[in-house]
Amino acid sequence: MTIGLYTGTFDPMTKGHLDIIQRASQLFETLYVGIFQNDHKQPLLTSQERKALLETLLATFDNVEVIVHEADLTVNVAKKLGVTALVRSVRNAQDLAYESEMVYFNRQMTGIETVLLLATPDLQYINSTRIKELAQFGVDVSRWVPDLVKAALEKKFEQK
Amino acid sequence: MTIGLYTGTFDPMTKGHLDIIQRASQLFETLYVGIFQNDHKQPLLTSQERKALLETLLATFDNVEVIVHEADLTVNVAKKLGVTALVRSVRNAQDLAYESEMVYFNRQMTGIETVLLLATPDLQYINSTRIKELAQFGVDVSRWVPDLVKAALEKKFEQK
Amino acid sequence: MTIGLYTGTFDPMTKGHLDIIQRASQLFETLYVGIFQNDHKQPLLTSQERKALLETLLATFDNVEVIVHEADLTVNVAKKLGVTALVRSVRNAQDLAYESEMVYFNRQMTGIETVLLLATPDLQYINSTRIKELAQFGVDVSRWVPDLVKAALEKKFEQK
Amino acid sequence: MTIGLYTGTFDPMTKGHLDIIQRASQLFETLYVGIFQNDHKQPLLTSQERKALLETLLATFDNVEVIVHEADLTVNVAKKLGVTALVRSVRNAQDLAYESEMVYFNRQMTGIETVLLLATPDLQYINSTRIKELAQFGVDVSRWVPDLVKAALEKKFEQK
Amino acid sequence: MTIGLYTGTFDPMTKGHLDIIQRASQLFETLYVGIFQNDHKQPLLTSQERKALLETLLATFDNVEVIVHEADLTVNVAKKLGVTALVRSVRNAQDLAYESEMVYFNRQMTGIETVLLLATPDLQYINSTRIKELAQFGVDVSRWVPDLVKAALEKKFEQK
Amino acid sequence: MTIGLYTGTFDPMTKGHLDIIQRASQLFETLYVGIFQNDHKQPLLTSQERKALLETLLATFDNVEVIVHEADLTVNVAKKLGVTALVRSVRNAQDLAYESEMVYFNRQMTGIETVLLLATPDLQYINSTRIKELAQFGVDVSRWVPDLVKAALEKKFEQK
Repeated sequence: MTIGLYTGTFDPMTKGHLDIIQRASQLFETLYVGIFQNDHKQPLLTSQERKALLETLLATFDNVEVIVHEADLTVNVAKKLGVTALVRSVRNAQDLAYESEMVYFNRQMTGIETVLLLATPDLQYINSTRIKELAQFGVDVSRWVPDLVKAALEKKFEQK
Repeated sequence: MTIGLYTGTFDPMTKGHLDIIQRASQLFETLYVGIFQNDHKQPLLTSQERKALLETLLATFDNVEVIVHEADLTVNVAKKLGVTALVRSVRNAQDLAYESEMVYFNRQMTGIETVLLLATPDLQYINSTRIKELAQFGVDVSRWVPDLVKAALEKKFEQK
Repeated sequence: MTIGLYTGTFDPMTKGHLDIIQRASQLFETLYVGIFQNDHKQPLLTSQERKALLETLLATFDNVEVIVHEADLTVNVAKKLGVTALVRSVRNAQDLAYESEMVYFNRQMTGIETVLLLATPDLQYINSTRIKELAQFGVDVSRWVPDLVKAALEKKFEQK
Repeated sequence: MTIGLYTGTFDPMTKGHLDIIQRASQLFETLYVGIFQNDHKQPLLTSQERKALLETLLATFDNVEVIVHEADLTVNVAKKLGVTALVRSVRNAQDLAYESEMVYFNRQMTGIETVLLLATPDLQYINSTRIKELAQFGVDVSRWVPDLVKAALEKKFEQK
Repeated sequence: MTIGLYTGTFDPMTKGHLDIIQRASQLFETLYVGIFQNDHKQPLLTSQERKALLETLLATFDNVEVIVHEADLTVNVAKKLGVTALVRSVRNAQDLAYESEMVYFNRQMTGIETVLLLATPDLQYINSTRIKELAQFGVDVSRWVPDLVKAALEKKFEQK
Repeated sequence: MTIGLYTGTFDPMTKGHLDIIQRASQLFETLYVGIFQNDHKQPLLTSQERKALLETLLATFDNVEVIVHEADLTVNVAKKLGVTALVRSVRNAQDLAYESEMVYFNRQMTGIETVLLLATPDLQYINSTRIKELAQFGVDVSRWVPDLVKAALEKKFEQK
């Protein structure tokens, strides 16, 4: 049985993330989507809010399971879950340089494999940081995130 | 059941190819290794010689099957075999740019996925063209190709 | 008055070319589209066939004029036409490296400027060489080229 | 009538900026040079000091107008000004990756075009951050910035 | 007589650094290894601890001398030492873009040359920042740093 | 004693080559400049013509010696000459990718080092192929090649 792990901050989840998850779910019998808790950065959405969003949005994927993982090396999380391969999305040469380093250390430490998926061309520039910035300026972000995420962002920025 | 397809000219097979096949064989239930017949380039080894070498070298991999495919689009071969994803190795930004184009067309034509594996750092510069060039100059290529391949190359260059 | 020049082989014209021409036509008062006659490569479509296709496809653009230019340096053609800037499309780092060299020589020789437009993400991988290859394999290329071009390609390959 | 907009922090303006402005001014009937007020970074020169410097240095360009724009999305500023295209300078693959993302979002939000100009080779490494660092170490920066800017920097660092 | 200067933070020294020093020591009659004191970043190891480690690890290199240099431009340090060329390691396109800028300014200011050495493939992803992060998570870093460095890191993290 | 080897086709020598040779000559006690005889490409200038041009143009460099080497691996030539390091010029990411492969094989075969020098910004786009193409179109190439080379090219193209 093959098991995949796709991790990210998902703050917030975008249509780019959704595309990778949908594609990766076809490559593995089980795909874990791991929400990474980064203590250094203050996220906009709490990990519980992000978990709730992902679980709702991924409800129709039978073999996808959402997990939240504490600050730990991804490979340690992967080992505990019996993961066959990590899944990463690459868009360009900069991503490749970054992933190359991660793949090297992950393989050296645990032998764990990483599978790279190329971002779909018309989704490749979508990223959570830009989405938050644009939402904050009042831009309608529905082209780049699921409606549920758009609503969650609007609610957040209203509260602020 | 997931099925992978890794194609190449394998003229000749290198330790880089072997590494990718070994790693890809763990990601899929069945992995096809497809020897591509390129009519435009005159190969050094015939497709039958290459098939024999690959079958011998991959004999211990239970879920790997070697095929020779005629001049046809890779996606057509993949469709006939019911392939889940193509497997490609990337080493650097140039490779990524090339694969990006292939992935785009393959997904547009058939929806077929491509999984990219990063070349192992100390194998990343090995390529068949350089190996043939060095073998022709009498360089011992055993660091970069399996012994069986080295013997096949030496025999070829003796005949010439 | 500003004048642009966008040159290419257009063998055949793609939706990528059409996109650049539409966008460039808004930047200049007059935009010349120059079909380059490359003596070294045997084109699939004759320069007169290409000219006819472009003129039909660009008929609605009031400020665009199609020209065929003999084997000459692009800057020489540009000088004769009183061009303000050349227009080039870039997709990635490889394109940028190539264009950087051309821009350098063109500016050194004549001071002529070059304006780079980024290819639209979901059109960026379309290129004439691949289109011809796919059409030859019988693939329906209507996603990537205008219908008129598709018909012209089919007719060509039938004749062969 | 075509209108261009070239924005930057210009803290301080360099000979690289001047070169792009001079070249862009020939492509558009009107070129706005927009000084961006970034609230997050504390600039060395105030926006009024920068505006005064740019206006003096660009006085001979008849079709160039200097503006200071509040913290707002560049495309919002552009829309209010009726801009035809944004102007950006690119030096290398890293710049291209960054601009590609900006161009994508700007076109998706407003359809506004971006024109990329390649930095002139012997000016391509000049950037405001390095200039400030070198000036602080007492290096003569007159090779890389106009004399007026050099004097403004020296005055600033004396005050500190 | 030719003199080289290889500077870095060496916080901590890795097997990658050691490889470059060993290789650079064969290119110059004297090679200075300069420990850079960066006031902005709080290093893990003090400059004296780093100097002691480097001196021990480089004791067998007859023509290598370790120095600590205050916050000053590298070229100023180089001029005082009568250096023929700076030595820098490059791993990928990102490094090259960064070094290109440094080389430009260093040559413009002082005419000093820079020699680039390509990182050895299986050492290329090792970097001090990652090593510290992994050591902090309790990962055995002996594959990537000399034993003496590993011990120093363990001692540091115990103290914290 | 350190010995460098800088090889190329030099068909023809450009100001870019001259710059690298001048800079490399300061790094080594002896610098060999090796004219490579490539049997596959028909050069414009014979190896004897190129040798004569280089010897004249490099006459003032006391520690530079011009050699012509037969079709052999560069490392074999280097070994016979007792070379410390090969010298290569890099301009961009494409060059780096190519040199990385060469450096890997050269070090694996013989342990020989390669020193990379960054092309001087305003000389970086000059290359022999473009120069020949432009000279053939009657462009004055004196900005990019020494006068002696310009004269040699003009004489060649007159003969044709």
